[in-house]
Amino acid sequence: MNSKALGKVFLVGAGPGDPELLTLKAYRLLGEADVVVYDRLVHASIMNLIPSRTPRVFVGKYPGRHHTPQAQINDILVELAQTHGTVVRLKGGDPFIFGRGGEEALELVAAGIEVVVVPGITAAAGCGASVGLPLTHRGYATSVRFVTGHCRAGKPLNLDWPSLVSEGTTLVFYMGLANLDEIRTNLTRHGMSVRTPVAAVENGSTPEQRVHFSTLERVKNELAELSFRSPTLLVVGAVVRVAERLAPHMVAKPLQEASHAHLG
Amino acid sequence: MNSKALGKVFLVGAGPGDPELLTLKAYRLLGEADVVVYDRLVHASIMNLIPSRTPRVFVGKYPGRHHTPQAQINDILVELAQTHGTVVRLKGGDPFIFGRGGEEALELVAAGIEVVVVPGITAAAGCGASVGLPLTHRGYATSVRFVTGHCRAGKPLNLDWPSLVSEGTTLVFYMGLANLDEIRTNLTRHGMSVRTPVAAVENGSTPEQRVHFSTLERVKNELAELSFRSPTLLVVGAVVRVAERLAPHMVAKPLQEASHAHLG
Repeated sequence: MNSKALGKVFLVGAGPGDPELLTLKAYRLLGEADVVVYDRLVHASIMNLIPSRTPRVFVGKYPGRHHTPQAQINDILVELAQTHGTVVRLKGGDPFIFGRGGEEALELVAAGIEVVVVPGITAAAGCGASVGLPLTHRGYATSVRFVTGHCRAGKPLNLDWPSLVSEGTTLVFYMGLANLDEIRTNLTRHGMSVRTPVAAVENGSTPEQRVHFSTLERVKNELAELSFRSPTLLVVGAVVRVAERLAPHMVAKPLQEASHAHLG
Repeated sequence: MNSKALGKVFLVGAGPGDPELLTLKAYRLLGEADVVVYDRLVHASIMNLIPSRTPRVFVGKYPGRHHTPQAQINDILVELAQTHGTVVRLKGGDPFIFGRGGEEALELVAAGIEVVVVPGITAAAGCGASVGLPLTHRGYATSVRFVTGHCRAGKPLNLDWPSLVSEGTTLVFYMGLANLDEIRTNLTRHGMSVRTPVAAVENGSTPEQRVHFSTLERVKNELAELSFRSPTLLVVGAVVRVAERLAPHMVAKPLQEASHAHLG
């Protein structure tokens, strides 16, 4: 098989939500794509940047329905590359940080299709910047750890809990809102104080962003009262105290006006 | 003091090196800045995007000289905000991931100056995408941890080593090249196998990028033989095996041509 005859797939990170946090490369590729494959983690304001002539294929989960299995997404990507030329597979955040980009890339290269991965601003960096929350900070954290807070339905989180309780490390849980009880129970069981500060960021970097500062003990009930919903990022650790000092000085919804002015 | 009369400082992540990995927002701000403050971690091809009329202030380390102390950088930022209007403080990678952005932000808000933080593609995401190295991958890693591999001159690394040896976690060492002996010794002492795969990425995402796959046991000698220099990112963990399969299929120096065409 001559791989030159096949198309090419770009696995592209769309960042946390604000269209202005796309990379220049992602923005260019959205304009050049023959077809865009996306899921519900890509914010609508980013989808609006795609030229209207460009076909889009949705492979995400509709509310109340099953999502497209990963194997089927892989098949769709291979087929589109063979029939449509330049395929952009757009993913929220970064393709290689909880984005399953590695699985898609392996399938594509096995089918002889060229792959280019374009990194995106991952939610932790996007939310941190927007809120004023440094992920590392001298005297507070020499390390930051991104952890999946989500597991396939019904299963407990498969995490090395003792190692997660570590002084000087910021923990960032992706997709952990539904498992806050399990996260709190396991962290405190292995020695983390219930008074450890926690920041929750809902819809980070978008005009709908909400932030709540709490503690490991109180966060679950407080977020329930405030009706926080997915996507919500949880940051656990001493750096949250720095954010509590910085956040009031950060420009409220700093990205809204700029985004519209720039890309509109 | 009326803070409206003061300037504004944007702490802006410049990403890993490739100019096309700037965010749209960072790119716009480089064009709008009244002055740009930068250090040696910002790639020359990104500095070339700044309009020639815009003054630049270098606050980095010249080879063989002392670097500008952080307190002095903070003072410079405050003074420039008071005299120059819109200040862009440009940092390699992301301002809040080993970028000391939190320290600068605290000083600025204490002086009554408005701060906006613009996230950037951190080296781990930039190198991962460029090499074909997923930082998380089903069955390999449910977590990824960014760790400083650098400490103030002469001091040992102040890390919680036992917690760093954790199945299912990818470790990424920033600025760790000079301390590879210390990193290997401590990780293996706490139970990590000397055969754990390691990827080293020098000048990730730039035309000068080099990649080397090795193991914890061999990496130090091999990188010395290959004359790897800073900036080199080290990735330790099972995901490196995925990269060994993907890397040969990734487009060699994928970003070089595109960057020049787009921004030239």
